[in-house]
Amino acid sequence: MKISGRNKLEATVKEVVKGTVMAKIVMDYKGTELVAAITTDSVEDLDLKPGDKVTALVKATEMMVIK
Amino acid sequence: MKISGRNKLEATVKEVVKGTVMAKIVMDYKGTELVAAITTDSVEDLDLKPGDKVTALVKATEMMVIK
Amino acid sequence: MKISGRNKLEATVKEVVKGTVMAKIVMDYKGTELVAAITTDSVEDLDLKPGDKVTALVKATEMMVIK
Amino acid sequence: MKISGRNKLEATVKEVVKGTVMAKIVMDYKGTELVAAITTDSVEDLDLKPGDKVTALVKATEMMVIK
Amino acid sequence: MKISGRNKLEATVKEVVKGTVMAKIVMDYKGTELVAAITTDSVEDLDLKPGDKVTALVKATEMMVIK
Amino acid sequence: MKISGRNKLEATVKEVVKGTVMAKIVMDYKGTELVAAITTDSVEDLDLKPGDKVTALVKATEMMVIK
Repeated sequence: MKISGRNKLEATVKEVVKGTVMAKIVMDYKGTELVAAITTDSVEDLDLKPGDKVTALVKATEMMVIK
Repeated sequence: MKISGRNKLEATVKEVVKGTVMAKIVMDYKGTELVAAITTDSVEDLDLKPGDKVTALVKATEMMVIK
Repeated sequence: MKISGRNKLEATVKEVVKGTVMAKIVMDYKGTELVAAITTDSVEDLDLKPGDKVTALVKATEMMVIK
Repeated sequence: MKISGRNKLEATVKEVVKGTVMAKIVMDYKGTELVAAITTDSVEDLDLKPGDKVTALVKATEMMVIK
Repeated sequence: MKISGRNKLEATVKEVVKGTVMAKIVMDYKGTELVAAITTDSVEDLDLKPGDKVTALVKATEMMVIK
Repeated sequence: MKISGRNKLEATVKEVVKGTVMAKIVMDYKGTELVAAITTDSVEDLDLKPGDKVTALVKATEMMVIK
């Protein structure tokens, strides 16, 4: 199975904060902190918790460049 | 100046491909390839070219998690 | 493997149009036409072609509602 | 009036969950569950409630493909 | 008919550039230039051309803040 | 420093509402109300409050057109 989304970063979950609808997943990726805002439903569906090995996925059209 | 976007990855531009409207920026981030699809206008405005030190920016709501 | 993205529509590829950077994938989902704009690189990576059985994926934060 | 967003799915609202800022709208689309995360302000502006006939709207650049 | 997307800017089309898949729509909004990258299919479906009075639509989750 | 995101609107913050994970920033831009849904972490990082002069940033691929 392959996903068209081009950016796949293998990270480790550090923190999970659940709100009513949205949740925050803080991850560590090679020393850089990543933050994803996903639905709380997804957190429960994937059973996300600190220490999990995950892949952060970002579609190429969602990435900007600063120079 | 600070940007609300939570994910900032310091990367190096490896390749720039310009289409009529959209352009592809391939970057290296600590050995992982990143790909951003931005407008060709932006590439010209930022004068993006291989070797440039840039920051890839992703809003937290645009990042998914795979487990 | 599970993906946090909440919307997964099992569709059939009807048409693939490749531009320099971006490509258009037209799909059929139970009689409704779906259109995804993804990178041409992804099309080649997934070897997308008419007749393919695929899943269209949309993050919940990317879906609007009209009433 | 026409909208440039290419994906328009006629669905029925099944559930509305309101958080402080974001709300979750669960919809049924031809037997598939759709989930949109929109602002709670929008839910109130559109007066969204279970049973409503709505259209889920997704821009082509926000749709990925899995194969 | 109401759309959940919160940001609606009444603008005038200044320029339309069509690529194979994606098109660029440059608009004027009270003296500020807006740029939308939409599919070329949408441009044809809406028959977009310079001088058109349009509304630029942006979902709240797609807007960042710089300070 | 330049950002590839094409749409930059100079606005004034009118209201800040913080939820557990996401926050709503209401802004005034030349008489039009703008609404951004960003993480509550960002609001704290940027110390956003009513009266602040900010720039609302939107990537061209996130803007739709209604005609």
